[in-house]
Amino acid sequence: LSKHLSSWDLNEAIRARKARHDSCCSVHYLRFTDRFKNIPRGTAVFNRRVIWGFPSIGRILHLETGLKEQFTLPFWVEEKIDGYNVRIFRLKDRLLALTRGGFLCPFTIDRLPDLLDTRIFMEYPDIVLCSEVAGPENPYLNGHPPFIEEDVQCFVFDMMRQGRPGFLPHAERLQLQEKYHLPTAPVFGKFDVDQLPTLKELLRRMNEEGREGVVFKEESPKQRRAKYVTSHSSIYDILTSAHEIKQLPPEYFINRVVRLVLFMDETGLPCQSTTERGLGHAFLHGLFQAIEQFKNERRVYETFRCRFRNKTNAHHLIDRLKHTGAHIHVVQRRLEWQDGFYVLEFEKDVPALTGLLGHLLSGGLVFD
Amino acid sequence: LSKHLSSWDLNEAIRARKARHDSCCSVHYLRFTDRFKNIPRGTAVFNRRVIWGFPSIGRILHLETGLKEQFTLPFWVEEKIDGYNVRIFRLKDRLLALTRGGFLCPFTIDRLPDLLDTRIFMEYPDIVLCSEVAGPENPYLNGHPPFIEEDVQCFVFDMMRQGRPGFLPHAERLQLQEKYHLPTAPVFGKFDVDQLPTLKELLRRMNEEGREGVVFKEESPKQRRAKYVTSHSSIYDILTSAHEIKQLPPEYFINRVVRLVLFMDETGLPCQSTTERGLGHAFLHGLFQAIEQFKNERRVYETFRCRFRNKTNAHHLIDRLKHTGAHIHVVQRRLEWQDGFYVLEFEKDVPALTGLLGHLLSGGLVFD
Repeated sequence: LSKHLSSWDLNEAIRARKARHDSCCSVHYLRFTDRFKNIPRGTAVFNRRVIWGFPSIGRILHLETGLKEQFTLPFWVEEKIDGYNVRIFRLKDRLLALTRGGFLCPFTIDRLPDLLDTRIFMEYPDIVLCSEVAGPENPYLNGHPPFIEEDVQCFVFDMMRQGRPGFLPHAERLQLQEKYHLPTAPVFGKFDVDQLPTLKELLRRMNEEGREGVVFKEESPKQRRAKYVTSHSSIYDILTSAHEIKQLPPEYFINRVVRLVLFMDETGLPCQSTTERGLGHAFLHGLFQAIEQFKNERRVYETFRCRFRNKTNAHHLIDRLKHTGAHIHVVQRRLEWQDGFYVLEFEKDVPALTGLLGHLLSGGLVFD
Repeated sequence: LSKHLSSWDLNEAIRARKARHDSCCSVHYLRFTDRFKNIPRGTAVFNRRVIWGFPSIGRILHLETGLKEQFTLPFWVEEKIDGYNVRIFRLKDRLLALTRGGFLCPFTIDRLPDLLDTRIFMEYPDIVLCSEVAGPENPYLNGHPPFIEEDVQCFVFDMMRQGRPGFLPHAERLQLQEKYHLPTAPVFGKFDVDQLPTLKELLRRMNEEGREGVVFKEESPKQRRAKYVTSHSSIYDILTSAHEIKQLPPEYFINRVVRLVLFMDETGLPCQSTTERGLGHAFLHGLFQAIEQFKNERRVYETFRCRFRNKTNAHHLIDRLKHTGAHIHVVQRRLEWQDGFYVLEFEKDVPALTGLLGHLLSGGLVFD
């Protein structure tokens, strides 16, 4: 795993259509759209400087056996934050941020000074901060953690170095976090598999508080990880994605129902009417809203709002969203100075549900 | 559309792997496993005698526009019965029954004398009775209409003739039904699109009574048809299929959620907690049961029970189920004479959910 990928590798990836040239915020780079050999999707190359993609973290759905099966050494338990994943890094005299898919994110880049103390990049120019940005005013997701009431916050949960795929060891990360007072996801401590009852109790409480779940990180050179989420998180995902019921793979919803049942079974939550109602509501609420939207405007859409320091970055974001996929239709509604920020409001069309409701509500037949 | 398909057509279909030789109950025949040209899936050929497949009936999800869009003339409204579709017909001196997929059904064949007055086949040897067989003791489905408390009943809802793909006109069917006192699905009358409020009221009532829905049949040579189901039916399908959540296409569940919302919206049912709870319960109940089964027996299965007159036919059924698909595992549990019938009990394994729970409950990782 060398610091640089050879130009031969890069050309081969481009020929195999696993990597492509891209540009955003006046930066040109190469983005891996899919995994290619050992190079993960989301890896980005800036003139031979490589920011490795964030690796997939496997999920366990059963704590007791999952922890025993996945970990042999004690592991750290950290809160999993319901936001979007970005890698923040320095390129010459600029600070940049890449989403999971390897897109530069004009919103995160714009708000970096509000999100964390950026001095770390002066002293550690090749550090990569793997972070979750979460809150009601973000441009990608309609869900957010219950404890963030406005705007967004950043939570650093891992660090990498430019050109290297692995994570920094826990102690090294902790030291840097403390030195620069970086905002981090809550860490619940170091546990081993014998502490299962404590962990179950922790997750029951997180579930009651409407929190997403945890990531387990083994303290070892192998850096084994696994995530585990609450039943609240599964229901909340369904609720906030109901508009996209025909656009997401249908397994998206079914997998969450399975997770939910296994969480309840293992943590001993009874199958009460409140959970049943919550799940039913999650499926129905967004669809009723979508029908209302369609009846009023002949289209189904989701609304987003976020704050910028710099108006140009808002334009960059809209441009990027418009060019991300042929099936995405973004309409800017408002961009105004208000209380110290440029407030951007935009709508993202949901063409699959718009099309389906159009067909069904005009009396079309389906054969299923 | 000739009475016979040419042997050239048949050979071409076999070469294209759209038809295959099959045998059941000592009858050899050719079964269309897929649509081939204008020949529907489920068509069966017995030594050049053709029983045409039952055609797909399109579904409307919005009554007001759907009826206007699909029908120009008045249409009959008949109850849609929640059972399995069979075509009953005479082959020389035997009465046979084909399922939708074109499989001979040893259970239906065995019970024909209990299901209807078979004298019609003496006087009309080429009649084909398109029927729904429904009730708690059937070998295929775990759901049944609320008004059938034991065993099964048969409901003739259309008639065809051997060798011809279309249906008999309404008047002709009615006359034969009455002459032979054939059991039929309830007919609510002839309506036109102006009677929408009456139809909505009918469907609200059917929904309250836990009935599946209706089929609309235009009285015209074009024989246009459409089906429409209640929200109860959508929830009930999810409830009775939750075991198969990883085996059915995931759209199966998502489509029913969409149907449910459109039914509620159009019939003016408020999105009450009872419906939300019903939908949540439908998803959760079967999965909790499956987890219990898995913990006790390391397998997930569904239980079926049905009554036979003739023990050999029970064996034929088990043989047929065992050979229907490589992924189906059927275990006979009981076959005993009781109260005038051979009572068969068997279990059908649900390998997809067994496999998934096996992986998850032993601590496996998933990447999704």
